[in-house]
Amino acid sequence: MSLSEFDLIDRYFAHCGALRPDVELGVGDDAALLIPAAGRRLAWATDTLVAGRHFPEGADPAAVGHKALAVNLSDLAAMGAQPAWATLALTLPEAEEAWLTGFAAGLCDLATEHEVALVGGDTTGGPLTVTVGVAGFVDRPLPRGGARPGDGIWVTGELGGGGIGLEVVLGRLTPGDADGEVLRERYYRPQPRVRAGRALARRATAAVDVSDGLAADLGHILAASGAGATLELVDLPLVPAGVRAAGEEVARQAALAGGDDYELVVTLPPAVEEEAVAAVAETGGTLTRIGTIDPEPGLRGRGADGHVALLAAGGHDHFRRDP
Amino acid sequence: MSLSEFDLIDRYFAHCGALRPDVELGVGDDAALLIPAAGRRLAWATDTLVAGRHFPEGADPAAVGHKALAVNLSDLAAMGAQPAWATLALTLPEAEEAWLTGFAAGLCDLATEHEVALVGGDTTGGPLTVTVGVAGFVDRPLPRGGARPGDGIWVTGELGGGGIGLEVVLGRLTPGDADGEVLRERYYRPQPRVRAGRALARRATAAVDVSDGLAADLGHILAASGAGATLELVDLPLVPAGVRAAGEEVARQAALAGGDDYELVVTLPPAVEEEAVAAVAETGGTLTRIGTIDPEPGLRGRGADGHVALLAAGGHDHFRRDP
Repeated sequence: MSLSEFDLIDRYFAHCGALRPDVELGVGDDAALLIPAAGRRLAWATDTLVAGRHFPEGADPAAVGHKALAVNLSDLAAMGAQPAWATLALTLPEAEEAWLTGFAAGLCDLATEHEVALVGGDTTGGPLTVTVGVAGFVDRPLPRGGARPGDGIWVTGELGGGGIGLEVVLGRLTPGDADGEVLRERYYRPQPRVRAGRALARRATAAVDVSDGLAADLGHILAASGAGATLELVDLPLVPAGVRAAGEEVARQAALAGGDDYELVVTLPPAVEEEAVAAVAETGGTLTRIGTIDPEPGLRGRGADGHVALLAAGGHDHFRRDP
Repeated sequence: MSLSEFDLIDRYFAHCGALRPDVELGVGDDAALLIPAAGRRLAWATDTLVAGRHFPEGADPAAVGHKALAVNLSDLAAMGAQPAWATLALTLPEAEEAWLTGFAAGLCDLATEHEVALVGGDTTGGPLTVTVGVAGFVDRPLPRGGARPGDGIWVTGELGGGGIGLEVVLGRLTPGDADGEVLRERYYRPQPRVRAGRALARRATAAVDVSDGLAADLGHILAASGAGATLELVDLPLVPAGVRAAGEEVARQAALAGGDDYELVVTLPPAVEEEAVAAVAETGGTLTRIGTIDPEPGLRGRGADGHVALLAAGGHDHFRRDP
């Protein structure tokens, strides 16, 4: 079929996500017109998913739509922001109705869940690439550079599901049905920790989301804070389906270097640990202590035997890896 | 060479464009932190350029960087907004230093010229695609739906340079050196009419920028306003180099359906015409009357002989055209 650019936006994305009173003019004009909340800062992030790199060619379009927004909401979550508005720049080889319907459903359902309005966008022909932009409001920002020696390192939810999920999606690992489904969902439908991010915003000294693997992403906190860290490797909250499917060692490696988990890693001064755990629990989430910020630079890991070794800085590099 | 994603952003885009006091945190964290101006609305737009579709493979990277920002600033101009912040999502096959240096120079120079700060972005591997997001402040917005019968239709600058310029770039037209250079520049380095847009914001009833050709873009105003229009075809301000290179008929066709001109088309009630022309002149621009808004739907053109004919709605469709 041949839908023009204008039909596409109007037809699939004109009423996408939440209806918000702060959107004066949404999809369909040269630019969206928005009313920022008085006295609040704005957080703005953008992230791209490329077919064959961030998701396999032929992936369920609803999963692609979900993930394209989820990875961006995860960036806002890591800043302690409350998401409000999103834009979509969609490049696709052809305007296939079934694909677009599924994609829009995946993206717009997640937008509605987080009270986000899609306010504008652009569709163009070309290799399948999805760039979403998101903006939201911040009262107490959570930058990367505030970690201090003695702070505990904490992580929401479970790690390793994204990396092992990709192996399942690619057919390189074949766990039982139930575990396979859990792991595929972890890869395709990460849940951005927006509520946990807001709960932590008043308490954490630094935060980052785990998109490229714990080691690389925690590394950003360390670099920005001028500090080092020691991780308690046995304390990493590994996704149980991943441990069953691939074994504990592989699951731990996936947590450290696999990426695609979209959990939040935060640093907490000991005095606020208890209330932070309670605040995240109130949002329905969990928080696990996995290490400590050190004055000495470098990222170390302590194993089950008590030995400490330097961890490779590695992690996901978007110029190297193909799913 | 193998630069990772993080190196790329830090190295080429960390200090890109203007230094602005309303940027609390720019490139390098999970999200940018921005301080919206109190009491002003925000205009937000995003547009994608795809290699082989919006510019030829092998195009000068500085021109690609310029154009990727320019087409977005043009959207803000058509809303009467003053640009402030931009994000860049860059997908590229490999991290080539020379290409990135040129691209960044083209984008960041134009950002500086318009006092825009690049505040965030994402780089990823894949087919060359550039998505820029821009946001700015609006006092009196210029939506598309306000045109009224009797309003004059006016356009900034000159038309047809984008469409004929593409023919020159592709080697399908070989004018003399000076004209060739002018036309190539029109295609590669459109000048977004930001100052003219702000000058018109207090006066025009509707506005749109000419990205897809005058007929298609004016069509958006007509559809949103529930009106029709008659264009005086002999009054279209055609770029003289284009008329010399391709003849008047082809140049007029390029103006109507070629796209890539990034001039503003606005509708002005007769009472404000004079002051609007003067206000745009003060910004160094020109404004030419090219037609009238009619109560009857449809877009008509009056030729040199006085005959009026319906114009095809046509124009640029991003799913059909390849440069």
